Amino acid sequence: MKFGGTSMAGTERIRRVARIVKRQQDAGHEVAVVVSAMAGETDRLVNFCREANPLYDPAEYDVVVASGEQVTSGLLAIALQALGANARSWLGWQLPIRTVEAHAKARIEEIDAEALIAEMQKGVIAVIPGFQGMSEDGRVTTLGRGGSDTSAVAVAAAVKADRCDIYTDVDGVYTTDPRIVAKARKLTNVTYEEMLELASVGAKVLQTRSVGLAMKEGVRVQVLSSFIDDDAPAADTIPGTMIVSDEELEGMDMERQLITGIAHDKNEAKITLTRVPDKPGAVANIFGPLAEAAINVDMIIQNVGRDKGETDVTFTVPAADLARSLDLLEAAKETIGFNRIIPDTNVAKISVVGVGMKSHAGVASTMFKALADRGVNIQAISTSEIKVSVLIEEDYTELAVRVLHTAYGLDAVEA
Amino acid sequence: MKFGGTSMAGTERIRRVARIVKRQQDAGHEVAVVVSAMAGETDRLVNFCREANPLYDPAEYDVVVASGEQVTSGLLAIALQALGANARSWLGWQLPIRTVEAHAKARIEEIDAEALIAEMQKGVIAVIPGFQGMSEDGRVTTLGRGGSDTSAVAVAAAVKADRCDIYTDVDGVYTTDPRIVAKARKLTNVTYEEMLELASVGAKVLQTRSVGLAMKEGVRVQVLSSFIDDDAPAADTIPGTMIVSDEELEGMDMERQLITGIAHDKNEAKITLTRVPDKPGAVANIFGPLAEAAINVDMIIQNVGRDKGETDVTFTVPAADLARSLDLLEAAKETIGFNRIIPDTNVAKISVVGVGMKSHAGVASTMFKALADRGVNIQAISTSEIKVSVLIEEDYTELAVRVLHTAYGLDAVEA
Repeated sequence: MKFGGTSMAGTERIRRVARIVKRQQDAGHEVAVVVSAMAGETDRLVNFCREANPLYDPAEYDVVVASGEQVTSGLLAIALQALGANARSWLGWQLPIRTVEAHAKARIEEIDAEALIAEMQKGVIAVIPGFQGMSEDGRVTTLGRGGSDTSAVAVAAAVKADRCDIYTDVDGVYTTDPRIVAKARKLTNVTYEEMLELASVGAKVLQTRSVGLAMKEGVRVQVLSSFIDDDAPAADTIPGTMIVSDEELEGMDMERQLITGIAHDKNEAKITLTRVPDKPGAVANIFGPLAEAAINVDMIIQNVGRDKGETDVTFTVPAADLARSLDLLEAAKETIGFNRIIPDTNVAKISVVGVGMKSHAGVASTMFKALADRGVNIQAISTSEIKVSVLIEEDYTELAVRVLHTAYGLDAVEA
Repeated sequence: MKFGGTSMAGTERIRRVARIVKRQQDAGHEVAVVVSAMAGETDRLVNFCREANPLYDPAEYDVVVASGEQVTSGLLAIALQALGANARSWLGWQLPIRTVEAHAKARIEEIDAEALIAEMQKGVIAVIPGFQGMSEDGRVTTLGRGGSDTSAVAVAAAVKADRCDIYTDVDGVYTTDPRIVAKARKLTNVTYEEMLELASVGAKVLQTRSVGLAMKEGVRVQVLSSFIDDDAPAADTIPGTMIVSDEELEGMDMERQLITGIAHDKNEAKITLTRVPDKPGAVANIFGPLAEAAINVDMIIQNVGRDKGETDVTFTVPAADLARSLDLLEAAKETIGFNRIIPDTNVAKISVVGVGMKSHAGVASTMFKALADRGVNIQAISTSEIKVSVLIEEDYTELAVRVLHTAYGLDAVEA
């Protein structure tokens, strides 16, 4: 079980979480709980570091910020004991949760869960701070913001859990953002791949890295609301959305939807380079420097140039990397040989996602027609095995999501 | 160097502490720094534990409250790095600081300072959270409130420090409480034994346990103000009060005062048992149960009884233990065979302290005469090698302290 910062904000809420956890044990489960810091606490600690030195040492930053989850894990153990449960905390260095040394963005390498499993079998509820680990040289590390979801999946994998229940502010994964489409439906099941592609919907629900890890380790993850009535029956009976493998989903006796959901992402920026020489190696000259700087280039289109032997190249990068991308490209202007750079942050990526997608052509033509009928202009297109994405003007985002949600028959039937 | 919670309250003050520390390194010293949590933080964390469960598990309490010093040690390392210093934090479990398992009131058993010394020799400033350690079974322990002074002395002993500078809210140890006697003088030197006896003055300055440890380990402790100008020269040249051994003090070429200071203690309670049988074993029947309950009995006087074969016995206990003491004595009423118990919390203990005290008789007679001249009635007397204490009515505390401060010639000469 994993509880986020909103669920852990203050001792009253922590006592509530303790009741939810205890009920799972009472229902016959062995339970490990991964907790976030109290809502706002990590921000407070990060600000302290920035105030002490804007160029803070990530190793010491980790020492400071890891304390937030240390506090909530101790408090949850205390609150569980108050309910008569046998509970104790294990900090990252105590298990240990071994990570690579990259401070402030460490990756979990291994969790030694032997002691944990032995104690859980004796009926002890294990409480583990999320977000933190220990490097090979015995220092505190943290996994980067939102890392507690990844901690939870990693612990679930280490103890070979039947299920990893992630309690969040929402009660599951929806066909699209319910704030945009009132008729969005909660999905009963979704595959890892779909969940990754639904990132713009899912990012508010689960950290993307945790989904990747769950897929790699085969951990069945359930997303459910932490705001259920704490006198309600155990979580088994009030399902949220279950994230499972494609194989497991195939095995379920249910009608598969062609399309699972509609995602949108406003955090992309478009860059167009005009009059790039249309010759071998030109593209490598553009994307080489960006790849070296670990900037993730997504959609790429090469337009027909106005003059012979020249072409316009358009692609998208994360908006946060736009300034750095422009600097790198300007620096490589001679090598690349372009005329102008035209940046544009007024774009959004809309994606139609579904493992049941049989043919891109069919899905894409429905998409293009639905958008064209409402006057939404498509600036770029990209596809993967389970999605079709288009780049549009940002102002049309909500309209496009609503139109597509209806076009693919995802709207909930009126009650 | 050790800095308390007031000095660490917020990043601005932590940056100030960093400048004070850096100056010591610049003056040619190898430096380790022990830090408290930010002022108010430990109270906040303790309250969380109480709210989670009034009968909290001390082991989990330790996990929660130890986080306060973890935060400040990381932040001070960051602030030192901002000044160009080479600095890093070592948490209690990283050195480790080994303690007995007694959670929330652990005692330091051993500090493995090998890595610390090696790094300090390379010019690294070591930052160590006070108050915390690790038990034999690898769990977080804390030393009890005010334990950071003890941590500092223990680290100083482990690295064989030339000096342990404890920066506090005051600029040294005074002949008495300056809030009572405006003419109180700052002492240049004081012995460990005197410091222990001056507890009622010294308790606001240094935790008593830390003084005992310094005496046992022969650590030279200096008490000085953390509110010195941070552009002032290094601490060597702006001394506070140096706490040293009797031998070192003897070796100093200076005139010794007969009396070092006047202490007062309002936290004692007086208990009188009337008509106790005046026979062998009667006293053992009284103090046996109190000793078993680890209640510290201080002054004891046996009055002349009204009837033959009976006597009144009066003694003091810490006011905090009064209720428990009364319960224990009532339970043993049959065995002891007293008539009535008369408790009295309206008392204060005034002590005259000085290793230079040649004869108790001379010191005591000065004391009794000075108090009698001002109408202060003495209820009990006790002496140790370096002090004479009297018990008086609490309302006369300040008067008695002022009278004695003058009587022993301790008043500062007017500027």
